[in-house]
Amino acid sequence: MQPGVWRLTLGEPEAHTPSSVFSYQPAESGLREMPNVEDCPLSVDAITGKQISRGFQVTLPLGVDEQLYGLGLQLFSMNQRGKKKTLRVNSDPVADTGDSHAPVPFYVTTSGYGVLVDTLRYMTVYCGSAARRLDADCASSKPGGAASSAAGAEELYESQARSGDAQVIIDIPSARGVDLYLFAGPDMQQAVQRYNLFSGSGCLPPMWGLGVWYRCKSDFTELDVLAMAEKFRNDGIPCDVIGLEPGWQSHAYSCSHIWGPKFPQPKQMMTRLSEMGLHVNLWTHAFTHPSSPIHEQLSSRSGDFLVWGGLVPDFADPEARRIFADFHKKEHVDLGAPAPAPTASWLPRGASGYKMDECDNSDFIRSAWSFPEVSNFPSGLDGEQMHSAFGRLYQQTIQSIFDGMGRRTYGQVRSSWSLSAALPYVLYSDLYDHKAFIRGVVTSGFSGLLWGPEVRHAVSAEDLIRRIQTVVFSPKAQVNAWYIKNPPWEQWIRNANNADQLHEDREWVTETIKRLFEVRMQFLPYLYSSFVKYHQTGVPPFRALVMEDPTDPNLQNIDDAYMMGDRALVAPVVAGINERDLYLPKGAWRDFQTGERYEGGQSHHFDVPLDKTLVFVKDNSVLPLAQPVQNVSDPALRQITVNVYGSGELGCTLFEDNGEDMEYKRGQMNTVRLAWDSSTQSAHLARSGNVQAPRYEVGGWNQIS
Amino acid sequence: MQPGVWRLTLGEPEAHTPSSVFSYQPAESGLREMPNVEDCPLSVDAITGKQISRGFQVTLPLGVDEQLYGLGLQLFSMNQRGKKKTLRVNSDPVADTGDSHAPVPFYVTTSGYGVLVDTLRYMTVYCGSAARRLDADCASSKPGGAASSAAGAEELYESQARSGDAQVIIDIPSARGVDLYLFAGPDMQQAVQRYNLFSGSGCLPPMWGLGVWYRCKSDFTELDVLAMAEKFRNDGIPCDVIGLEPGWQSHAYSCSHIWGPKFPQPKQMMTRLSEMGLHVNLWTHAFTHPSSPIHEQLSSRSGDFLVWGGLVPDFADPEARRIFADFHKKEHVDLGAPAPAPTASWLPRGASGYKMDECDNSDFIRSAWSFPEVSNFPSGLDGEQMHSAFGRLYQQTIQSIFDGMGRRTYGQVRSSWSLSAALPYVLYSDLYDHKAFIRGVVTSGFSGLLWGPEVRHAVSAEDLIRRIQTVVFSPKAQVNAWYIKNPPWEQWIRNANNADQLHEDREWVTETIKRLFEVRMQFLPYLYSSFVKYHQTGVPPFRALVMEDPTDPNLQNIDDAYMMGDRALVAPVVAGINERDLYLPKGAWRDFQTGERYEGGQSHHFDVPLDKTLVFVKDNSVLPLAQPVQNVSDPALRQITVNVYGSGELGCTLFEDNGEDMEYKRGQMNTVRLAWDSSTQSAHLARSGNVQAPRYEVGGWNQIS
Repeated sequence: MQPGVWRLTLGEPEAHTPSSVFSYQPAESGLREMPNVEDCPLSVDAITGKQISRGFQVTLPLGVDEQLYGLGLQLFSMNQRGKKKTLRVNSDPVADTGDSHAPVPFYVTTSGYGVLVDTLRYMTVYCGSAARRLDADCASSKPGGAASSAAGAEELYESQARSGDAQVIIDIPSARGVDLYLFAGPDMQQAVQRYNLFSGSGCLPPMWGLGVWYRCKSDFTELDVLAMAEKFRNDGIPCDVIGLEPGWQSHAYSCSHIWGPKFPQPKQMMTRLSEMGLHVNLWTHAFTHPSSPIHEQLSSRSGDFLVWGGLVPDFADPEARRIFADFHKKEHVDLGAPAPAPTASWLPRGASGYKMDECDNSDFIRSAWSFPEVSNFPSGLDGEQMHSAFGRLYQQTIQSIFDGMGRRTYGQVRSSWSLSAALPYVLYSDLYDHKAFIRGVVTSGFSGLLWGPEVRHAVSAEDLIRRIQTVVFSPKAQVNAWYIKNPPWEQWIRNANNADQLHEDREWVTETIKRLFEVRMQFLPYLYSSFVKYHQTGVPPFRALVMEDPTDPNLQNIDDAYMMGDRALVAPVVAGINERDLYLPKGAWRDFQTGERYEGGQSHHFDVPLDKTLVFVKDNSVLPLAQPVQNVSDPALRQITVNVYGSGELGCTLFEDNGEDMEYKRGQMNTVRLAWDSSTQSAHLARSGNVQAPRYEVGGWNQIS
Repeated sequence: MQPGVWRLTLGEPEAHTPSSVFSYQPAESGLREMPNVEDCPLSVDAITGKQISRGFQVTLPLGVDEQLYGLGLQLFSMNQRGKKKTLRVNSDPVADTGDSHAPVPFYVTTSGYGVLVDTLRYMTVYCGSAARRLDADCASSKPGGAASSAAGAEELYESQARSGDAQVIIDIPSARGVDLYLFAGPDMQQAVQRYNLFSGSGCLPPMWGLGVWYRCKSDFTELDVLAMAEKFRNDGIPCDVIGLEPGWQSHAYSCSHIWGPKFPQPKQMMTRLSEMGLHVNLWTHAFTHPSSPIHEQLSSRSGDFLVWGGLVPDFADPEARRIFADFHKKEHVDLGAPAPAPTASWLPRGASGYKMDECDNSDFIRSAWSFPEVSNFPSGLDGEQMHSAFGRLYQQTIQSIFDGMGRRTYGQVRSSWSLSAALPYVLYSDLYDHKAFIRGVVTSGFSGLLWGPEVRHAVSAEDLIRRIQTVVFSPKAQVNAWYIKNPPWEQWIRNANNADQLHEDREWVTETIKRLFEVRMQFLPYLYSSFVKYHQTGVPPFRALVMEDPTDPNLQNIDDAYMMGDRALVAPVVAGINERDLYLPKGAWRDFQTGERYEGGQSHHFDVPLDKTLVFVKDNSVLPLAQPVQNVSDPALRQITVNVYGSGELGCTLFEDNGEDMEYKRGQMNTVRLAWDSSTQSAHLARSGNVQAPRYEVGGWNQIS
């Protein structure tokens, strides 16, 4: 295997597993640059696998104080130590059972290693939660067999209470074996990096993908969409991407994948939006309606059950993927005027990407709308395996369009699985609890995932503003107005919004939201560079504080604050809260808004009035901020001011490229090192690379002492 | 098999199934008295079973309009048509996934048959919710195989939309086969009757079990309990059973099963309570602490994991059951003065029964406290199978104590499974939604279960009264004050109650509650007779309205009203509601309180002020009502008034016996037929049987026209 990666085969692994079904390409060079670790971080002798009546059981050691994280997107808990989790894709995961849009069978621990279980089964992990008897042999003897000695029984049980927990038990139904992949650290973040690099490394979205997104109401017509786009520009509210919801298709639920009567001239619409500096993202799902032109071709390459009357394409079949992708390219991505050669202001005129809905099994609650676990697919996967794989394979299918064009995309998907870090898709959910949405940003970073805490409506101006404060410091700054007619800052209450009863407070609220979007745009160069590092090294751009210092117990359960890149720490609050305690990681930190300095390694109490987002910058570093432009194609984005915190000696790194295509893979990217020398009071900018444009221009160094 | 019962073996059934692991004795005579049905209600050729990658799959036919009920206690839905349900025991089943305290793998349909799946696996049922392709053959062909013809594709899909639903698909993980038991009707209620009779027929609780129950606060001492008992008697509030919560044991969580320091003289306490006409019910659970005297004996007869540091007894092992039951008998049931010979006023002085807690797997949400699915038990069951069986086997263990003594018991249990109708235990939950609690009364009746919508605290006087209105018309009229010090009618808000801040409205609320408990006591002869019919014929004493007339679509989704016995229809409302619409089954009905007549087969609108419980009596029947005594041992309970509704010609049947022991099985029970002849304006009482005492005495016939 790759350096610092070990594969352990237990029993007879199944034919269909993530590593056999998914396309992925380990980032060999990135892995080679990781610290050398000679020995497997877990003793292979301490890991056991055995066939049991239910399937296959794996047992791994776990230290008494070892904390355990990961298992994909987990909206209801972060630290999994002591929990039992069943990893089942679920479209409406209402409880902390393990069910998730993306329950990745991968965990990392504070001891600095990661474990990937290469399965598509609904496996259960007992994260030190089950207490095995030390005298367990007696339990496998027949009734009437010898009882264990009573002498010392109490003492025995006391030790069981301690050592009984020191195990991870994995229960894989139906399987007769499994491969484990072990990832060395030496620390927890490095274990995550190795996993991400092994998966193909972190994705690099186009720069415009990091701008502001606005999804229009589902029943909007072409003209409604254009009117909304013009409203954004007239109101001076930043926006880079306009999303269309189901109404654009001639038939949705299931999907025809073709334009419907509300969009008679999609090519012209997309050209016009492109001229306004806007990209178009198309909602869709995979279930293919009989009226779709690809229905016949997919018929023999689909599962044996229908969903909403539509075929379930067998995305594990390369030919099914090709049929699906080719049609989407032709109908949506290639639509529009021929694209000019990539430049900083180059804008594609066809669809820039997709929002892949409904690929996340069923909700198991209100209705069982998706295909059953007992389904068969021509590729040989059964329904359970396909549910685990479906969102991941759907991404792979869509990604092939853009990879084939040498063009980047950034999209949304409602399900994912393991080995997916390289796929530029952000998870979303119909759930809407703000605290859970913040937690999603934190937990997704352990498993090579991105999560978007999108804003839809709000119960109050405060709720709206608090939610926007979170989303602008997240992987995807999206307002999803699919069920409201006017932007939520003009009326956050759904029914009133749709009745055009705009809120009397809309002026100041709009100004507040606009300012928050501008902050997003100011952070874009920094944020983009954080993604470049994700791509180069596997360090998640959004990650839990515990990853900074796994040995600090005070960080081990913080699920409402996170790192954004190397320099910024974000601690959002929800409506109803205007103060909070926060333990800061060791080192010193600066309040982004006031510059005030706080010592790390201790808790502080912060007032958080409504106009405040708690963001901290690492002391003695610098933070480049862009002009608050309307969209990424505006060259003013490259005119930056550099905030210098304290000595500024830790500096910061930016990356320069066209932000659109794959040329960076051929070295077409500059590295720009920014730092401040406090002794000489001088700025330092060191650029390496041959890209001539676009380049950042520093308009000023702003010292904050 | 028995008449009207068929067994269908598909594949190779597992060694450990309900029918192989549980003790049950089909009620042969009751089954013989059912209508003769020659042919299996489902065509055996239409039922298929096959081994699949996940386990075993069974497919059964389902008519287009056929509605499907059962699957045990289901708190979140009644009609399962169109749903996917996974039958997994869950101690905190918060969503409509199939998870339940008692998810019995048995269903009945409006076409008048029942299907029992003889498995302990976490099976999934697709109740007509999965749409299989009619051209599904093509899906099993290899990629590159022949596609189905495009000609007529739309037409094909339209027919799929119809016929695709017409299946029940059962997915049994890990299994290689299963036995199905099919129960003929000819109607739905008769299918339920046959299932109950096959299970051993419905249980017959002791008459005192149908009185009012009050569980004391968990930390009460012996003296606190006695003081509470005296308070009831002083306040004139009916009560038959006092329940003790965990505090009585020397160690709970896990359990020592022995009395602790708060109860230094349990024998004297029980004797004193007995003298006050009160029975004692003991909370407990099965997980056995090292300090328990039976710990050593159970050590070799327990699973290989601990729960709360306690052994998990292997209740599938008869010797483990014997050890457990013998100790409970000696320590609790036999405690107290020697019992005198059974008479109507005979009262046992040891524990009258148990509340069996924590036998329902884990909640899968907050913590995974129970043993893992991968557990092994000496009997050969794995953890998954044991979770399904555990509550049922625990009941069987405890029941053996009372069966061996020829004495009846009535208890509580937090989990059950199939073939359990004969076990006199009422299910309960830590959930507390009043609507779900009402629905539980309705759904449990399809699968041979009893559910108790117990009252704990309330958010308002209205909430308390509405909840009590429900519980007095349920299988178990229990107030469970385990976390409040004073009775909830003196203060329904938990914290205030425990601070002894009694509510200013307590006087009228107490009077209202007292009156409701008195109504319960008035209905006791009728209710007891409904249980005798359950025992004799398998007709559930509490059941859904749809069971009365499965062909009436207006009844098929009513989950908030139910039949109590043959004559009464109960339609509770929850707080916030003071009017409701209700569709009454065909025939005519009388308002129990006003005597007003309502035509059935149509909807009516009812005002439901707080002093009103919507109860209807079948027109032209009679309803015997007892004196509102304090407890069942009061002979005044046998002095009844008979309400005559309309012509009274449909009459009503009562049963007379000592209500305590098993002598009724040897014919020691009278049948008393009550009717009214409207033409002669004369009452008819026809008694058969030799029991001399106790007998009912009719004090008057009260004509309501």
